[in-house]
Amino acid sequence: MECRAIAFQSTVHLSLDIPAHAICVLGTEISLDISRCAPKNCESFTVRASPRVLVDVAGTVISGKEDAVICRSLLDTSHVLVRMVSPSVSVDEDKVLVSYYHPNEEVPMATALLYLTGIEVNLEADIYRDGQLEVPSDKQAKKKWVWGPNGWGAILLVNCGPADVSQITDKSKVFSDEIRKLSQMSLTVQGPSCILKNYKLVLHTSKEEAEKTRVYRPQKDSCAYQLVLGLGWHCHALGPLENFQKETFYVEATEFPSASFSGLISFSVSLVEESQDLLIPEIPIYKDTVVFRVAPCIFTPSTQMPLEVYLCRELQLQGFVNAVTELSDKSDSQVAPVYEDPNRLGRWLQDEMAFCYTQGPHRTVSFILDTPRAINLEDFPMKYSLSPGIGYMIRRTEDHRVASLDSIGNLMVSPPVKAHGKEYPLGRVLIGSSFYPSAQGRAMSKTLQDFLCAQQVQAPVELFSDWLMTGHVDEFMGFVPIDTKSDKKGFRLLIASPSSCYKLFQEKQEEGYGEATLFEDIRADQLLANGRKARTINQLLADKSLRRQNDYVERCIDLNRAILKRELGLGEKDIIDVPQLFCLERLTNIPSEQQTPKLLARAYFPNMGPEQQPPGGIGTFCSWSPTALCMIVMDMNLGIPKPFGPQIKGICCLQEKVRQLLEPLGLACTFIDDFDCYLTEVGDFCPCANVRRVPFDFKWWKMVP
Amino acid sequence: MECRAIAFQSTVHLSLDIPAHAICVLGTEISLDISRCAPKNCESFTVRASPRVLVDVAGTVISGKEDAVICRSLLDTSHVLVRMVSPSVSVDEDKVLVSYYHPNEEVPMATALLYLTGIEVNLEADIYRDGQLEVPSDKQAKKKWVWGPNGWGAILLVNCGPADVSQITDKSKVFSDEIRKLSQMSLTVQGPSCILKNYKLVLHTSKEEAEKTRVYRPQKDSCAYQLVLGLGWHCHALGPLENFQKETFYVEATEFPSASFSGLISFSVSLVEESQDLLIPEIPIYKDTVVFRVAPCIFTPSTQMPLEVYLCRELQLQGFVNAVTELSDKSDSQVAPVYEDPNRLGRWLQDEMAFCYTQGPHRTVSFILDTPRAINLEDFPMKYSLSPGIGYMIRRTEDHRVASLDSIGNLMVSPPVKAHGKEYPLGRVLIGSSFYPSAQGRAMSKTLQDFLCAQQVQAPVELFSDWLMTGHVDEFMGFVPIDTKSDKKGFRLLIASPSSCYKLFQEKQEEGYGEATLFEDIRADQLLANGRKARTINQLLADKSLRRQNDYVERCIDLNRAILKRELGLGEKDIIDVPQLFCLERLTNIPSEQQTPKLLARAYFPNMGPEQQPPGGIGTFCSWSPTALCMIVMDMNLGIPKPFGPQIKGICCLQEKVRQLLEPLGLACTFIDDFDCYLTEVGDFCPCANVRRVPFDFKWWKMVP
Repeated sequence: MECRAIAFQSTVHLSLDIPAHAICVLGTEISLDISRCAPKNCESFTVRASPRVLVDVAGTVISGKEDAVICRSLLDTSHVLVRMVSPSVSVDEDKVLVSYYHPNEEVPMATALLYLTGIEVNLEADIYRDGQLEVPSDKQAKKKWVWGPNGWGAILLVNCGPADVSQITDKSKVFSDEIRKLSQMSLTVQGPSCILKNYKLVLHTSKEEAEKTRVYRPQKDSCAYQLVLGLGWHCHALGPLENFQKETFYVEATEFPSASFSGLISFSVSLVEESQDLLIPEIPIYKDTVVFRVAPCIFTPSTQMPLEVYLCRELQLQGFVNAVTELSDKSDSQVAPVYEDPNRLGRWLQDEMAFCYTQGPHRTVSFILDTPRAINLEDFPMKYSLSPGIGYMIRRTEDHRVASLDSIGNLMVSPPVKAHGKEYPLGRVLIGSSFYPSAQGRAMSKTLQDFLCAQQVQAPVELFSDWLMTGHVDEFMGFVPIDTKSDKKGFRLLIASPSSCYKLFQEKQEEGYGEATLFEDIRADQLLANGRKARTINQLLADKSLRRQNDYVERCIDLNRAILKRELGLGEKDIIDVPQLFCLERLTNIPSEQQTPKLLARAYFPNMGPEQQPPGGIGTFCSWSPTALCMIVMDMNLGIPKPFGPQIKGICCLQEKVRQLLEPLGLACTFIDDFDCYLTEVGDFCPCANVRRVPFDFKWWKMVP
Repeated sequence: MECRAIAFQSTVHLSLDIPAHAICVLGTEISLDISRCAPKNCESFTVRASPRVLVDVAGTVISGKEDAVICRSLLDTSHVLVRMVSPSVSVDEDKVLVSYYHPNEEVPMATALLYLTGIEVNLEADIYRDGQLEVPSDKQAKKKWVWGPNGWGAILLVNCGPADVSQITDKSKVFSDEIRKLSQMSLTVQGPSCILKNYKLVLHTSKEEAEKTRVYRPQKDSCAYQLVLGLGWHCHALGPLENFQKETFYVEATEFPSASFSGLISFSVSLVEESQDLLIPEIPIYKDTVVFRVAPCIFTPSTQMPLEVYLCRELQLQGFVNAVTELSDKSDSQVAPVYEDPNRLGRWLQDEMAFCYTQGPHRTVSFILDTPRAINLEDFPMKYSLSPGIGYMIRRTEDHRVASLDSIGNLMVSPPVKAHGKEYPLGRVLIGSSFYPSAQGRAMSKTLQDFLCAQQVQAPVELFSDWLMTGHVDEFMGFVPIDTKSDKKGFRLLIASPSSCYKLFQEKQEEGYGEATLFEDIRADQLLANGRKARTINQLLADKSLRRQNDYVERCIDLNRAILKRELGLGEKDIIDVPQLFCLERLTNIPSEQQTPKLLARAYFPNMGPEQQPPGGIGTFCSWSPTALCMIVMDMNLGIPKPFGPQIKGICCLQEKVRQLLEPLGLACTFIDDFDCYLTEVGDFCPCANVRRVPFDFKWWKMVP
């Protein structure tokens, strides 16, 4: 808020009897009252100044350097403004002379003198985001934070490290190499020492901001740091001032922007004149303020290149592991096995976590954002299994039901798009929700939604996903990268399409393959466990109930298709309909108090088209939910769950159709043969994979949200 | 957030075998897939439609009314968009015909048919702020709220009434004429009844928004209303739908914008198709949303015309009462006596209350905003003493110390200004604060500051006032209106000036009046009670300690002068220095645990220059504090406390100086003779006056904050 814009500009009244004296802090103006002491009958005056001084008479600025003089009428002018360009070396070293003239006389009637001592107090930060701590020519600029390619303003990163630093509870010394990596803020003081000794400096922020930041000061003659602001301290008096003093502070944030926190944190130094007289209080002189913005938490879409794949270590499904390992080799990313966590009931990498990153001009930090459903987890084994340098952050959620939509898994992020003339260079976050609130409806909590909105750089879009069993948007849609040479957009939206599946089966029936069978090669016990049975194309097409269920699903998906076209600026040509059937079932294997009579949609066969890619590039195979869209996107290599569709001339017609749709776009399809991996019951053990991806090239501060 | 932008646009796949059927909600598009059923070898198609239908083929729009046909190649076009302009009278009344052609043939190979039924569902509000409930041509416009002269968006008022309405706790009937005065929102439904009976409508908002609003629905065949949203209810199912249905809802807000509430509240109706099949869930079809903004709380500066003066009834100081009554006669405003409230320790009209107003296109409501310092007041007599139609609102504060700056009295509002190229057509709020945070520093709580910022229309400026005993900015500054014919700005800023007072006394000394005496005519006991004594000009000028104290005060005021010039865009010519001396004293008559060693400034003689005008036009005579700047501004008539300055030739030289400064600007000065009224001890009984003023002509929604 502009409230903080306390500018310093003192008024000095000249006198003919005794010279005036003033301290001028660089970056401020002194308003010089020249009229009060003007001798009677004098109608004009001249001003001249010493080299470090600029004098502004009603907009005409002269520099003492050029030995210039301004002559003006006293009738129009009562005040002139005085500024200094560099600090004085000694006290009263600089001056301004005002001479008063009678009309038609050349010798001044009287002359008034102002002695000036220039001092400099500067709080500097990397406001131009180029790694340099600079003083802008307009000191007021530091108090604003401006988005966009021509914007400015310093940036703070949230400490996502699991490190000891976050466990400081007092102002004791901190020894950590991490501190040198934080954003810097430096304080410069210059001016005659005998003047400076009369002043004190206080570094401060507000109580509320101090809860969201920590400022460290290196200790003299030691490699330790002292916490000076944060953890309840919001002002810090600096020691006695000296000439040519330069202090560097290291600054970090402790939380991301949210509904109750805009992300802006300002720090000020106040220069205060200490009184030599017991009866007179200290006088504040000058305040220099610099504002930082806490960098947002940014999610990466599946179209970004993969860097690292996290897999549960105790995988029982070797086919899946082998396929993923092979894919990660192809795309030059690493496979990092992680521990399975028995506390989390199988809701693991996919639904409760997302890889994110946060970025400043000096540093980019990747981290896991975890929204554990279990409330009372005492520890989070995941954080001990991450590669070095990868951070870990927890956000507590509100709805802890099994099929809750209040988790970070209930979102996806689009590739960069443009819609209604607005650019979203970091894409948009897509959140699953109910269409309207009702007793049975599930939705992401307002707190988590507000958190996503508060990041500002990936403006969220609400989709309708409450008709799905898991309720997550990744069950019916996903994004794949395509060759940008052939297509400017560089991606396609895949959408599950029952009608496209019926159309395919009808064609096959017309071609005489009505007796080809879905799930032909699956063992009977596997089918039974998953509530499915082998059925021919003829049987499937004749099943009117299944048809009605899929008509319903198609309409639910169509609602979303319309939103996606509108909010992501997509045309039909940017969308690929992937054949997929759904069926409606009750939520099973959940506590009875969470049961509702409403039927929810679940993939009828392993879902191929859309991908399971919550943001942060979580490409997940399988989940706690019985329907899992299971495409894993590793650059142009796709790992697609084998659909076990009707075989025609020895080839699965669903698989063939998917190849026809995707391969012409330059995508390589690998079908992974692991039936149980996709269709398992809620709460069952199931393997997971989670992909960390390359951050966007685009810097978030260059956009205008 | 754009999350709410769920747009409806279904996709319909045409078929050659059977005609397709679709419901088209006005304002939505149907995407018609024409390629899937296209016969092989057909390369082009034509589209024609019935009169209520618009067809959009790749940007070329034809209207069925004009009986137009579009002919295109199937190679470029796979989908066409269909919209309707008015609801259908009967089912399947409207249609779209798509014919497919072989190359070089004029007779179509095949024709596909889509039957359309248009229905209309509209949630309307006064989005153009002209008193009309209108449907904008772009239905998406209703979901946005745009500031400025070309902006749009509906407006809600906060219920400031002390009325019973605010005490509703259930959905029982409400009988109140007040409800008809609320903002309206209307729902229109049109379409064939036999179609509408398959749908239901739900009116809803979010849980969080429902806590900040109340929506009433008139009951049929009765003059009562039913609460349908608010008080914990955030969705309301509407009864069976009928053709030509029109319902009016009445809407109010329950709180003003604040740090945690942007002021935006959106309401939606969701159209849901009820399933005829037990196994298939209901399908949401369409959502229409309208967003309201809660009108801000606006403060009025002293330069606005007075309407009503509130005076404590039990005034013991008749001179004051008479003078104010006389002034209010001159300015055509009413004097309304109010009760003294013994609970509030004399901190009454001035420090804890401000007159504000809030405004919509249909209505303006004045109210008192009360920030009582006493925590446990059970009732607030003030609210029973207000003129009819004047509202009353309480905001609880956090700092309850005697000299707290956390009250609505600690602010003033400037007249309309322009600074750094930005217009503030409703002025800016000026808040008193400490320069930097410290253990002894006082400041307005962040909650109250955030509340003021959240109103958006009077961007606050923080001033340095913690050096004053009361800490309120009105002790050293104020605004007076001046003739706009002679001056474009239309006001002057008055600033207390010790140096101007010393200059005046020096001139008088030089003129030989050094023995003229301040407080000459005041009784010795009155002076004693106020810690003052009669002193000559010579004595005052010789008092070096007093001089040092005033130099300190001058520098504190100068800091503020600089901020005011900068943040209100003022020049020296807009400022009048009013002679005033201060002295530094300890806060007395307060609980010992609130004592600090710091000395604070208090007016040395009744403070004339700047005015006691917290926003809302509170012109207060006297207060709980020992220094009171006591000018009351009633249009061009000023009631100024008599300073009891040194008499020269029978005339008080301070009074004469003030006349010289103000009367040339067209202001009429009345000096009020009541010494005790101005210099009383903290906590003592003291009279108060509080002025309700004319709202600004300028409508707040026409500015861009």
